[in-house]
Amino acid sequence: MSAETTYSTFITEDAIDRLIKEDVPYLDLTTWALGIGSAPGRIEFFTREKTVLCGTEEAGRIFARLGLTTTFRLPSGSVVDPGQLLLAAEGPADALHIAWKVSLNILEYTSGIATRTRKLVDLARQANPRTVIVTTRKGFPGTKELSIKAVLVGGALPHRLGLSETILVFEQHRAFLGAVADFPAHIQRLKTKACEKKVLVEVDSLEQAIALASAGVDGVQFDKTTPDETKRYVSALRAINPHLVIISAGGVNESNVAAYAASGVDAIATSAVYFGKPADFRVTIAPRQ
Amino acid sequence: MSAETTYSTFITEDAIDRLIKEDVPYLDLTTWALGIGSAPGRIEFFTREKTVLCGTEEAGRIFARLGLTTTFRLPSGSVVDPGQLLLAAEGPADALHIAWKVSLNILEYTSGIATRTRKLVDLARQANPRTVIVTTRKGFPGTKELSIKAVLVGGALPHRLGLSETILVFEQHRAFLGAVADFPAHIQRLKTKACEKKVLVEVDSLEQAIALASAGVDGVQFDKTTPDETKRYVSALRAINPHLVIISAGGVNESNVAAYAASGVDAIATSAVYFGKPADFRVTIAPRQ
Amino acid sequence: MSAETTYSTFITEDAIDRLIKEDVPYLDLTTWALGIGSAPGRIEFFTREKTVLCGTEEAGRIFARLGLTTTFRLPSGSVVDPGQLLLAAEGPADALHIAWKVSLNILEYTSGIATRTRKLVDLARQANPRTVIVTTRKGFPGTKELSIKAVLVGGALPHRLGLSETILVFEQHRAFLGAVADFPAHIQRLKTKACEKKVLVEVDSLEQAIALASAGVDGVQFDKTTPDETKRYVSALRAINPHLVIISAGGVNESNVAAYAASGVDAIATSAVYFGKPADFRVTIAPRQ
Amino acid sequence: MSAETTYSTFITEDAIDRLIKEDVPYLDLTTWALGIGSAPGRIEFFTREKTVLCGTEEAGRIFARLGLTTTFRLPSGSVVDPGQLLLAAEGPADALHIAWKVSLNILEYTSGIATRTRKLVDLARQANPRTVIVTTRKGFPGTKELSIKAVLVGGALPHRLGLSETILVFEQHRAFLGAVADFPAHIQRLKTKACEKKVLVEVDSLEQAIALASAGVDGVQFDKTTPDETKRYVSALRAINPHLVIISAGGVNESNVAAYAASGVDAIATSAVYFGKPADFRVTIAPRQ
Amino acid sequence: MSAETTYSTFITEDAIDRLIKEDVPYLDLTTWALGIGSAPGRIEFFTREKTVLCGTEEAGRIFARLGLTTTFRLPSGSVVDPGQLLLAAEGPADALHIAWKVSLNILEYTSGIATRTRKLVDLARQANPRTVIVTTRKGFPGTKELSIKAVLVGGALPHRLGLSETILVFEQHRAFLGAVADFPAHIQRLKTKACEKKVLVEVDSLEQAIALASAGVDGVQFDKTTPDETKRYVSALRAINPHLVIISAGGVNESNVAAYAASGVDAIATSAVYFGKPADFRVTIAPRQ
Amino acid sequence: MSAETTYSTFITEDAIDRLIKEDVPYLDLTTWALGIGSAPGRIEFFTREKTVLCGTEEAGRIFARLGLTTTFRLPSGSVVDPGQLLLAAEGPADALHIAWKVSLNILEYTSGIATRTRKLVDLARQANPRTVIVTTRKGFPGTKELSIKAVLVGGALPHRLGLSETILVFEQHRAFLGAVADFPAHIQRLKTKACEKKVLVEVDSLEQAIALASAGVDGVQFDKTTPDETKRYVSALRAINPHLVIISAGGVNESNVAAYAASGVDAIATSAVYFGKPADFRVTIAPRQ
Repeated sequence: MSAETTYSTFITEDAIDRLIKEDVPYLDLTTWALGIGSAPGRIEFFTREKTVLCGTEEAGRIFARLGLTTTFRLPSGSVVDPGQLLLAAEGPADALHIAWKVSLNILEYTSGIATRTRKLVDLARQANPRTVIVTTRKGFPGTKELSIKAVLVGGALPHRLGLSETILVFEQHRAFLGAVADFPAHIQRLKTKACEKKVLVEVDSLEQAIALASAGVDGVQFDKTTPDETKRYVSALRAINPHLVIISAGGVNESNVAAYAASGVDAIATSAVYFGKPADFRVTIAPRQ
Repeated sequence: MSAETTYSTFITEDAIDRLIKEDVPYLDLTTWALGIGSAPGRIEFFTREKTVLCGTEEAGRIFARLGLTTTFRLPSGSVVDPGQLLLAAEGPADALHIAWKVSLNILEYTSGIATRTRKLVDLARQANPRTVIVTTRKGFPGTKELSIKAVLVGGALPHRLGLSETILVFEQHRAFLGAVADFPAHIQRLKTKACEKKVLVEVDSLEQAIALASAGVDGVQFDKTTPDETKRYVSALRAINPHLVIISAGGVNESNVAAYAASGVDAIATSAVYFGKPADFRVTIAPRQ
Repeated sequence: MSAETTYSTFITEDAIDRLIKEDVPYLDLTTWALGIGSAPGRIEFFTREKTVLCGTEEAGRIFARLGLTTTFRLPSGSVVDPGQLLLAAEGPADALHIAWKVSLNILEYTSGIATRTRKLVDLARQANPRTVIVTTRKGFPGTKELSIKAVLVGGALPHRLGLSETILVFEQHRAFLGAVADFPAHIQRLKTKACEKKVLVEVDSLEQAIALASAGVDGVQFDKTTPDETKRYVSALRAINPHLVIISAGGVNESNVAAYAASGVDAIATSAVYFGKPADFRVTIAPRQ
Repeated sequence: MSAETTYSTFITEDAIDRLIKEDVPYLDLTTWALGIGSAPGRIEFFTREKTVLCGTEEAGRIFARLGLTTTFRLPSGSVVDPGQLLLAAEGPADALHIAWKVSLNILEYTSGIATRTRKLVDLARQANPRTVIVTTRKGFPGTKELSIKAVLVGGALPHRLGLSETILVFEQHRAFLGAVADFPAHIQRLKTKACEKKVLVEVDSLEQAIALASAGVDGVQFDKTTPDETKRYVSALRAINPHLVIISAGGVNESNVAAYAASGVDAIATSAVYFGKPADFRVTIAPRQ
Repeated sequence: MSAETTYSTFITEDAIDRLIKEDVPYLDLTTWALGIGSAPGRIEFFTREKTVLCGTEEAGRIFARLGLTTTFRLPSGSVVDPGQLLLAAEGPADALHIAWKVSLNILEYTSGIATRTRKLVDLARQANPRTVIVTTRKGFPGTKELSIKAVLVGGALPHRLGLSETILVFEQHRAFLGAVADFPAHIQRLKTKACEKKVLVEVDSLEQAIALASAGVDGVQFDKTTPDETKRYVSALRAINPHLVIISAGGVNESNVAAYAASGVDAIATSAVYFGKPADFRVTIAPRQ
Repeated sequence: MSAETTYSTFITEDAIDRLIKEDVPYLDLTTWALGIGSAPGRIEFFTREKTVLCGTEEAGRIFARLGLTTTFRLPSGSVVDPGQLLLAAEGPADALHIAWKVSLNILEYTSGIATRTRKLVDLARQANPRTVIVTTRKGFPGTKELSIKAVLVGGALPHRLGLSETILVFEQHRAFLGAVADFPAHIQRLKTKACEKKVLVEVDSLEQAIALASAGVDGVQFDKTTPDETKRYVSALRAINPHLVIISAGGVNESNVAAYAASGVDAIATSAVYFGKPADFRVTIAPRQ
C-alpha cells in the first residue's frame, strides 16, 4: 500500500531467478570451501552520497528467493542522504554472499538512473513547470524492466516503451512514402487509421514542422536543435496550433535541460539517464550474534 | 572461421528473440499504419568516431531472425575510423524498422564497452606488457553475455564470471572465520580443498598481504590503494614470493591505469568499462531500387 | 518482401516450439507404432468456405521446424474461395502427423478471427469510410500474438495492446480520485504529464462526456449506448470539439456495426471477433510417389 | 483439501507471470499518471448469468503474485446463480488495475468452456448415463492448460491430450500402410506393440467398422454420422464385440447430444465447448475505507 | 526422410541451447587464452565397443547451432562395431571445443540407454516374440526427452510418459477408496469414465489379480514376482480372460528378462535401462589442412 | 541456517516447475477418474539401505509448489540407516500423487550420486588426508544443478563446472598450437594472460609432465595411468616443483581410489559417481485420519 507499489513495473519471478543465476550459477565456492555457509549473518547497505533510491523491492525479492529475511528497507523513490542505512537482511552466510553483488548491482544501476532522472526532472520543472522529461528507447538491451522502473522512480516517463503502441514517423519511414507533397495526405490517413494515438513526426527544420502542423499532426519532435532555436520554433508553431505537442530530443544534459524547458517545449526526450556511473553503496556482511 | 568466431561468447537464440521482443513486442505500428511494410529497403550503420566494434554478429542474427539479408558486416574487434560503413542489410521496410533500434543499441553499448576496454588495455600494456586488465562483476544485471563479449573483444578478461568457479576471500568472508590468528590455517585448508584454483584474498594493508603471502596464498587483491603505494607493496611482496599474483582494484581509469601497470601488478581489475557513453553510430534506412 | 511481411507481428521461435510441444510432447505414438514414420508424404490444406486467411506463415515455420518443406503457401490476408488449396508441405510421415493439428488449429483459429474482423471492417467502412474497427484486450489469455496478427490481417487495429502505453480512464480509476468536481483538474495534469498520449475517458452519459470534452480530454468512449443514442451524442460533442475522438464499445456485432459507423464515431471497439467458430479447413495427408 | 484441488491441472508460476505480462508488460500507465497507485482498494467479481465457475484458483494466484489479498473465492466447479459475488481481493489500486482484465479474461473464457461442457455432459447423461463427453485437441493453441482445466471442471475428459500416449489411427495414417487387405495384420501388430493402450481407429463406414471389430480393434470412432446411423451401427457392432468402444465425433451440439447419447455410444467427442461466448462477469473496483 | 526421422521425439531449439549453456556458459577460456579459436579444425567421434547409436541428430543440431558443418553422421538406431567413425564436423577451433563434451555426453548417455534397451528387447523377443519391453518413469529428472528417444531407438516403448493420459491404479490410490469389497464397482466406473483407456491395476497377489480380472480390468501389473510365479499367474489369469494384459515389473535385468518373457506376459516394465555406464566414444579434434 | 543451506546450489523455481511438468503435464488421470483427489492424505519416504541423503530440499519445494505441507524432513548430507523415515508431507490425494514420483526420482538419483561420492571421498581420505575427489563434466546433460548439488553433498568438488572459468589444456588444444618446441612459450603467455587461474595441462607421459613443470605450469593431469605409475610420476614431479598440482583422471573406482590417493596426487577426477543405480527408497501414501 506504500508509495513503492506505485513504482513496481512488473518484474517476473523468472527474471529475479535469472538475475541471481547470472551472477551465481551454482554456489559461492569461497563460502563453501571455507565451510562457513550455515553461519548466521547480516547484510547491510549504506549510501555514500545523496541518492534517489531504486531497486530495494527487487533486492528484497532476491533476499526472499534465497531464504533471507529483510529486516529494514527504504522504498524506491526515497531521497537518502550519505551514510544512511537503506536495506538490511539476515540469514545464513552462503545466502548472504549469493545475494550480495546481484542485489548491489541492481540497487546501484537503477538508483543511478533514478538519481540522474530526478536531477533532470527538477531542473526542467524549475525552469518550466509544464515541461516533462521522457526517456528514449536507448537503454542497455536486456534491462528494460529495471531501467523503466528507475525512470518512473526518478519522475520521468518513457517516451515510447516500444514500437507497437505509439506513432512516431521518422525520416526513415518517410523515405518509403514517395513524393514529399503527398505527406499531408498520409498524415490524414494516419490520423484516421490510428485515431486513438497522437501522430508525432520527427522533423529536421521549422519549415517542415510548420507544414506538418498545418497538415494536422498532433506533435513534432526536433532532434538536436539548440535551446534558442527551439524557443523560436515553439513560438512559431504555437501560433499555428496552440495544442501542438512539441518535443526536444538529442544532446540534453544537466547543463542545458533548463534552457530547453524554458523554450516552452512540452517534453524533453533524453537517453542520458541510462548511462553514467551507478550509485555507490557500501555493503557490510557480518556474523549475527 | 574468421577472427570473430573467437569472440562469440554463447548467446542463445532465445536471448536474441527476447531482445527483439523487449523493443518491439508485436509490430512497428507506424510502419503498419503508413502501409509501407512490404516495400524493399536497406539499412546501413556508420561510425561517427573511432570505435572498437562489437556486436555486429548479434545484429546479424537479429537481421536473420527477422528475414533480412546482411549484405555487409565488419567483425567484432575491428577498429573502425569515423564515417565508415560497418553493417548493412536488406529486406522489407517493416522488418528493417523492427531491427533498427535493438541492433543499434546492442552495437552502441557493446562497442562502447569494447572501445573503453581497448583503451585501458593499450595504456596498461604500454606501461607494462605483463599487466592485464580484468573486469569485475559490476555490469548491468541482465547484460552479462553482451558485456563479457565486449570485454573480450576489447582485449580484457573477466576477473570472475561468477562466484561458482573461483576463490576470492573478502573481508565479508573472513568475518565468519573467527580469530585472525587462525586465518593461515584456513588458507591451508582452502588450498588443499580447492587445489585446482588459485586462492586469492582481498587485503586492506601491506601487513595483511605479507602475512597472507607467508601463509601461502596464491594472490592478493588491493582495493583503492594509490599507484605509489601499490608499487611499494609489489616490491615488498615479490621479495617474499616472486610468483604471488598481485591485483589492483578500485578507482582505475584512463588517467591512472598506466601508473597502476607500471607498479608491477599482474592484473588491474576495473568496473569502469561497463558504464559511460555508448558508441555513436549513424543509421540510414531507405528504399532499395 | 511480399504483403505478408506487413502482418508478421513478432512471434518467437520459442513460441513456435511451445505450440508444437503443447500438442505433441514427444512423438506421434500411432505413427511410430505403425512403423510408417519415415515414409515420404505430403500434407495439403483446403478451404471449405470463403475465408480471410491467417497463420500460414506460422504454419510454415512449424513445418520448417519439423524438417518439412513447404511447397505451396498463400499469404495471410488472402481472401480465398471455398475448396481452394492454401498450404502444402512435404516430408516424412511422422513429421507430417506431428505438424497436422497444431498448424491446422493455428490456421483455423486465426483465420476465424481475421474473417470476422474483415466482415466488421467492411460493413463499417461501407457505412462510414472514416470509422475504424479496434479490438479490445478480451482475447483468450495466452493467445495475444496470434490474435493480434489475425486482427491486423482482418483490417482492424488493437484498441490497446496492454495497459502500459495508453491512457484510458475508467470509472474504476475515477473512484480513487475524490470529488467529481476535481476531475477536470486531473485531466489537465494527465494531459501535461502524458503529453505524447491522447487522454481517453470511458463515460456513462452525454453529460459526463460534455463536461470532459470541455475539460479538454482527447477522446471519450461510450459503453453499450445504442446506435441512435450514439449518433445524438456525436453531434452534441462535435459541436464542442470537432476533433474529439469518439469511440463506441460494447455489444457490437455484424447486425449493428453499420449503424454504429453511421453514427459518426471514429472507432468501434469490439471483442466479438475473438470468439466464434474457427474457420474450417480440410486436410489430406498421403504418401508421395 | 477442497474439491477444487481435484481440478487443478498443473499450471506453472511462469505461466501465471506470462499471462500477466501479456496484458500489462510494465505498469498501468493511467493509474500511474493519475497518481492513485498506492490508494487501498477492493476488486469484486459478480456473475451476470448462471455459470459453472472456473479459473478462480488462477485468478487468486494472479492476485497473490501482485501482492493482493484474496478475501473471498468460490472454487472452480461451483454452479453460481446470476448476480452472485464469486471473487474479491484487496490491495493497492495499481495492483488491482494490473490484475483486473487478465484475471477477468481467464475467469470468463474458462467458465464459458466449463459451462458449455457441463451442459453437454448433463444432456448426454440424462439420455444415457453411460455415455461420457470427451473433448478434442481443437482448443486455441497456447491455451491447453486453461482449456483442459475447464473441460474437467465441466465434467468431461480430454479425448487425447496429445499424440504421444494414445493410439488413434486416422485415414491419414492408413494411407501409408499399403493394401487395405493387410490392415488386420497391422492391427494385430499394433495391439502387441502397444499392449497397454486401446487401439482406436477412425472409420468411414459400418463395413469398415465391422472389419476392424472382427480384426480385434478396441474401439472405433465415427465422424459426422447422424444419431440414427450411429444407433444402427452401435447395434451391429455390439453384436460382434459387446466390449467394443464406440465413439461419435463431429457436429455434436446441445440440440443433438442427447440423441447421440441415446444411440448407445460410449463417448461423444466434441470441439464445440472450446469456442463460443465467454461467460460474462461484472467487476467493481473501489477505494477501501 | 531416413529412418532416423522416426526416432526424433520433439526436442526444442531452446533445449538444445540450454544443454550447450549448461556446459559452456560463455566461452572455452582455454581456447580463447591460447588464441587458437579461429583456426579451422575437425572433430571426429569413434565407437570403442559395439553400440546401438543414439543422439547423433541432437549432436548435429548442436554443431549447427555453433556454426559447425556436419560432414558425416550415422543415424540413431545404427548398430555400430568398435572403432567406427560415427560423426564428424568441421569449423573453427573454439566452436569445436564448445561442442565437444556436450555432444559427447548426449551421445554417450543416450547410446548407453539405447544399447541396454536393445539388449533387453532382443533377449525378450528370442524367448517370446509377443513380449514387449516398456520403460518406467524412473529416468533422471530433467532428461525425459533424451531418455525417451533412447528408449524408442532401443526398440522399447515408454510404459507411461506421465500421469495424465493413462490409468494405472496403485495401492497408493486404493488406500483412498474404502472397503476392498467396493473395488469392483470402482473398476466399473473407471472403465465407463475413461472408456478410451485401458484400466490397469498393480497387484500384490494372484488372488487380487483374479478378483480384478473377474471385475473387468483390462490389465494387471505384478511387481517383483519371480519368473516362475509369473508363469503360474499368467496361466491362471488367461483362463479367466485370454485378452487380459499382464505386465511384469521390478527387478528385471539381462539375466532374467528371457525368463520373464517366457512366462507369457505381454510386457516387461523396467527402469534398468536408464542407469548404468554411458557408451564410450573416442573423440579427436585436429586442425584441418 | 542449518547445514543444508550450505549445499543449496541455486535451483530456480522454474526448474522446479519444469521437473514437475515433465512427469505430470496436467493431472494424475487415475486419481481424477477415481474421484479421490480431495481426500486428505500423507506421503512418507523411507530408506531401504544406508544412504547419504540428497534432494530433500528440492522435494520439499515440490511439495510446497503443489500445496502440500512438509511435516518431516532430514537435510541433505544426513547419513541415514536402512528403514528410517526421511521425508513426510500432507495434503490432498491428487497433489500427493502428482508429487510422488518426481520427488522420489530426484531423491533417489541425487542420493545415489551423493552416496557413491561419499564412499570415494572416505576411501581416498583414509589413504591420504590431503587428496580430494573432484568430479568431471560427464554428468547426464540436463541434470547439472542436481548432480553438482549431490557431488557437494557427497564431499567432493566439481573439477570444472564448465569451460568458461578455468584453464585446462587438452591434446585437442595443443594440436592447434604448432611445433611442440613452442609449447613452453605458450604456457608463459597463458600464465600472464590468465594470471588469476591455475594453468593445468592434461599429459600423456612423465616426460611431457616434466617438460611442462619446468615450463611453469601450475598443474598436470594424468589420464588412465595406473596407481603405481602415478606414484612414480608424483615423486619425479615433486622433485621439480613441490607445489605442482597433480591430478589423476580416468578409470577410478571404489577398488582403486585408495591406491590413487596413496600415490600422493592432490586430486582424483572421476565421472563414476554420476552413473550407477539410484538410491532405493520406499514410499507410502495413505489417507490421513
